[in-house]
Amino acid sequence: MLPIISVVGASDSGKTTFLEKLIPELSRRGYRIGVVKHDAHGFEMDREGKDTWRLKRAGAATIAISSPRAVASIRDTEGELALEEIAARFFWTEDMVITEGFKSARFPKIEVFRSQVEPQPICGPGSNLAALVTDDPVEAEVPRFSFSDVAGVADFIENRYLRERKHPRLLVQLDGKQLAINDFVQDFLIGGIRGMLSRLRGWETPEIVTIHMRLEEDE
Amino acid sequence: MLPIISVVGASDSGKTTFLEKLIPELSRRGYRIGVVKHDAHGFEMDREGKDTWRLKRAGAATIAISSPRAVASIRDTEGELALEEIAARFFWTEDMVITEGFKSARFPKIEVFRSQVEPQPICGPGSNLAALVTDDPVEAEVPRFSFSDVAGVADFIENRYLRERKHPRLLVQLDGKQLAINDFVQDFLIGGIRGMLSRLRGWETPEIVTIHMRLEEDE
Repeated sequence: MLPIISVVGASDSGKTTFLEKLIPELSRRGYRIGVVKHDAHGFEMDREGKDTWRLKRAGAATIAISSPRAVASIRDTEGELALEEIAARFFWTEDMVITEGFKSARFPKIEVFRSQVEPQPICGPGSNLAALVTDDPVEAEVPRFSFSDVAGVADFIENRYLRERKHPRLLVQLDGKQLAINDFVQDFLIGGIRGMLSRLRGWETPEIVTIHMRLEEDE
Repeated sequence: MLPIISVVGASDSGKTTFLEKLIPELSRRGYRIGVVKHDAHGFEMDREGKDTWRLKRAGAATIAISSPRAVASIRDTEGELALEEIAARFFWTEDMVITEGFKSARFPKIEVFRSQVEPQPICGPGSNLAALVTDDPVEAEVPRFSFSDVAGVADFIENRYLRERKHPRLLVQLDGKQLAINDFVQDFLIGGIRGMLSRLRGWETPEIVTIHMRLEEDE
């Protein structure tokens, strides 16, 4: 699975502003970054009266919108999808995922903290806090970085999450639910599947292979 | 690949209104319908100044937005994606895809026609017109349905595109590009991959299996 890190903090603590500096720094180092945000104010794509809204209401569970420079999609879900599933479904070519918010998820957190906004950091014990970004004199048992030390935070992320961990390179989902597969079995499956596919006309040493199979009941 | 049908027509011919009746009719018959639309007025999700816009501009190529009832995504592309790729990427559980517009694509077309709006149907010879929905006395070499005959159009789609054709059940993409695989090889690959995966703990006769593999250069 892709490494997932959450940048959290109180409202108005400066999460988006900090991400606007961190993402270019990580991109400059060659990492492709995907972002997951919470829906704060309702999807604009999904406003009453718009065509997409009309077609969703008519029963289309998924709508994709295509343009020459981007593609968007909106899909009804029953409950909020797990971050792991979002990462697997939407980030086809990314190297890591940064979430803005998602304080309650289990992923490592970098908290952006300003004492003007909130008296104490919002990440308490057990919240998997990995680092603090702040210019205030707050005590912390995790590494601290100033708001201007974007390179320091990028080093921290790179060393801790992008270099040391060997990312599993295979993700298998059964009806959208991730199957846990250990490294040995991953290697075995990648070898087996790659072995079969590479005999086909059209194989050209790709980097990313995606396979969708629809099984019948008797299989 | 999923069957793809385009509902086309001049602006204001009533495409969306017709789809608002056709989609529920097909849904009622048990088909899960995905819709693809062109981006007519720029993505609302992507308006200057919005957080998603700020993060995209900072270098996040893909952003997903999650809520308890839906998930949305927006991804930068170099040029417009092919409908086949959109269908494969975003419609995980659908049975067919209806596009609103996409007159120039190669897929079968149902034209919605009103002579008040346009003197002649917009689909000329060679445009893969499959049927006409109109209340006007226009000549056509394809089946014609009145605007109120939604059941007739649904019968037509069902008979021509959803029953007769056996849909390929396997889709393989190499770096996003679809690999052409004949039915025999599809069955072979589905059997082989299913055989390996079904030995794993956690296998529970799923309907949809999705596999993402990231290959190293030496593989």
